[in-house]
Amino acid sequence: MEEMSIRARIVKALGETNEAEFAQIIEGIHPADMAEVLETFVAEERSAFFEKIDPELAADILVEFDEEERGELVSTYSTEEIAQELVGNMDSDDAADMLSELPEDMTKEVLSQVEDVEQAKKIAQLLTHEEDTAGALMATELVVVNQSLTAIRCVAAMRSQAEHIDRVHAVYVVDDNDILVGTLSLKKLLTAQRTAPISELYRPIEHTVLSTTPAEEVANMMQKYDLFVIPVVNAAGELLGRITLDDVVDFIREEAERDYQLASGLTDEVESDDSVYEVTRARIPWLLIGLFGGLIVALIIGKNEEDIQLVPALAFFMPLIAAMAGNVGVQSSAIVVQALASDRKENNMIQKLTKELAVGLFNGLILSLVMFGAGLLLGYDQLITLTVSTSLLTVIVFASLFGTFIPLMLDRFKVDAALATGPFITTANDVIGLIIYFQIGRLIIGY
Amino acid sequence: MEEMSIRARIVKALGETNEAEFAQIIEGIHPADMAEVLETFVAEERSAFFEKIDPELAADILVEFDEEERGELVSTYSTEEIAQELVGNMDSDDAADMLSELPEDMTKEVLSQVEDVEQAKKIAQLLTHEEDTAGALMATELVVVNQSLTAIRCVAAMRSQAEHIDRVHAVYVVDDNDILVGTLSLKKLLTAQRTAPISELYRPIEHTVLSTTPAEEVANMMQKYDLFVIPVVNAAGELLGRITLDDVVDFIREEAERDYQLASGLTDEVESDDSVYEVTRARIPWLLIGLFGGLIVALIIGKNEEDIQLVPALAFFMPLIAAMAGNVGVQSSAIVVQALASDRKENNMIQKLTKELAVGLFNGLILSLVMFGAGLLLGYDQLITLTVSTSLLTVIVFASLFGTFIPLMLDRFKVDAALATGPFITTANDVIGLIIYFQIGRLIIGY
Repeated sequence: MEEMSIRARIVKALGETNEAEFAQIIEGIHPADMAEVLETFVAEERSAFFEKIDPELAADILVEFDEEERGELVSTYSTEEIAQELVGNMDSDDAADMLSELPEDMTKEVLSQVEDVEQAKKIAQLLTHEEDTAGALMATELVVVNQSLTAIRCVAAMRSQAEHIDRVHAVYVVDDNDILVGTLSLKKLLTAQRTAPISELYRPIEHTVLSTTPAEEVANMMQKYDLFVIPVVNAAGELLGRITLDDVVDFIREEAERDYQLASGLTDEVESDDSVYEVTRARIPWLLIGLFGGLIVALIIGKNEEDIQLVPALAFFMPLIAAMAGNVGVQSSAIVVQALASDRKENNMIQKLTKELAVGLFNGLILSLVMFGAGLLLGYDQLITLTVSTSLLTVIVFASLFGTFIPLMLDRFKVDAALATGPFITTANDVIGLIIYFQIGRLIIGY
Repeated sequence: MEEMSIRARIVKALGETNEAEFAQIIEGIHPADMAEVLETFVAEERSAFFEKIDPELAADILVEFDEEERGELVSTYSTEEIAQELVGNMDSDDAADMLSELPEDMTKEVLSQVEDVEQAKKIAQLLTHEEDTAGALMATELVVVNQSLTAIRCVAAMRSQAEHIDRVHAVYVVDDNDILVGTLSLKKLLTAQRTAPISELYRPIEHTVLSTTPAEEVANMMQKYDLFVIPVVNAAGELLGRITLDDVVDFIREEAERDYQLASGLTDEVESDDSVYEVTRARIPWLLIGLFGGLIVALIIGKNEEDIQLVPALAFFMPLIAAMAGNVGVQSSAIVVQALASDRKENNMIQKLTKELAVGLFNGLILSLVMFGAGLLLGYDQLITLTVSTSLLTVIVFASLFGTFIPLMLDRFKVDAALATGPFITTANDVIGLIIYFQIGRLIIGY
């Protein structure tokens, strides 16, 4: 039994009709492992498995599912089942996550059928927060004590609250107006006198975020200060919820994957186990942009056809100029995008562009000198070599500035700067690079 | 006072000669914030600041520093100062991190001067672990109790151990042979009878890692199971240390930044506030590869100069073919690299290549049809249009397979697959793409 893989155990369980046997086969498998295996099953098998397990386990597994597969599966449940079996067994933030993927009227119906009215209200509240804000990340399951309690009464209060909560991340202390004032360490509580008031034991709160704080800022803050949990408050300082580091880890990973995919020319969240159709859908948009750019490049070269017929060697270096312009542009954008993501905004735009100008000139000089030497060494015509080297310098400086400017502008207009690192900037640089090349050729060779 | 920025306060403190005043100005600033500001100072100012603060604060700030600046600063200390003032005030993992950046003989000297011999041994042990393994990430500060203790004696044991530890992440339970058997929740301990034995209270351990487990695997595991802390054991099951989620977050971010930079053609960890020289050094290698590739492309086109003179329009589409080959290759590699990073290795190489072949054919057909339509619409010669469309299909299929194959091969030979997404694959695809283009042109146009 120990030797069987999780997949084999779940497949075996699926074929088992005896309830007790079934339960025994899957006992001890972590819900995250079950989710991983079940995601690879077809919809019918998945549903068959969920019909056999109890609602609490179903809820635990669903929390671990990919959004897409979860939506598919949940839509096979009735609103009543969702309300009682799934939502009733989930933390408020997980329930809100799940419901946010359903149609709005279905969500309403589900919430009206949730037994615990307080929980329904909390979830409804969570659903109002914008995506990728602290409010959307937080959970509302909290252990909260009033600062006027004594240590011994506090322990009793905590015990009753903790009963409904899987894992206690922090004990929050509030004043009589429900304003968050601090946290209480269990270490302190363990060593305190029984009659000591909490107001003398708690540690004043150092870091909080508002429900409207962007998730990226929350992630940066928790990473910087090594926080495992951070309280979310409203503008008045009332405690609304808490965000734990594991939720932030998921966010950081997703963001990083998205940026990486944008830089590689992929839209959507595409994974290696997605279908051929899904992978194609994620790839085709960027390729169409690239094709479109290529056609513009073809038109530009066509307009300079006479130059190429007079000096055919000019054509040899077109791909080189285009490729270098694209590479430099992507490098410059990537540095800006990373600076924006990690909140290192210490320099203003003018400073950034000035520095990039220096880097571009420096890079450009080195590369065009190498190019000039290589060109002469390979026996190309001197004027051609001079044209290519000069163009290279000009194009590199231009692409550096352009690659820095575009993401900064996008960010200023609240568009995701990472978009700039995709094929868009490469294509634009290709086109402009070749225009520069032909102009300089005309100046130097003088045809 | 509240209104002054942290930077302004630190600058003000630097000018203050009165010790008490100095302490008052910087009171309450988080060490991470101090580190952030101090990193932007010149070395002399930084050293001046560190001379004024007490060793404990200095250690806290240094832990938050970038490696490079930390190495610079620490090397101005004597080995005795490092041993007593810095190492003495750090957790074992942070101390090992700091010492790993010093020359080996200096590290030895420091360790021989550390007062707490047990700590020195622990650090020396930590320094033996390979980079990016669980052993290198773990800290050895632990709260450990024997399972034979009663609840009341356990609390006493915990209290005395916790005194030396900043933050208690978990209480580990071991048997008489020091083999890790479980963890103890404080909730359970709070509610237990005073004479209950720990063996009846602990939760059996579910997840452990070995000290040799790769950091990436640790990160994936902690994320999957939502763990805040994971114990590190040796092959016999003895408890060696623990890894907390905040350390893993740092690792995840660094890995993601590295992959992103490789995909954007940057080497080294380059940040927007690095000097012009540092940024250039990170960018030049990839650009030189690109230049080298461009020169090869020029040679190939030169070899086909007659073709171009006969059919000049052939030259128009060279950049398009090269760019598309590059784009498709990067897309394919990126998907593989991500799959490798997140441990989704469910398919073998043949399956991956077969699927990629399907995706390449699908993408290629769509794009070459679009190309064919656009070519005719724009009035290009039919044979030229046919050549470009056919080449596009061939090149896309080839680049898909090549882009999938290279990172898989690199991974098999234990080379970082992310390298494949840089300009290397773009350049290789440029070259091969154009060779294919001219061959197909020769076949179709028959010059």
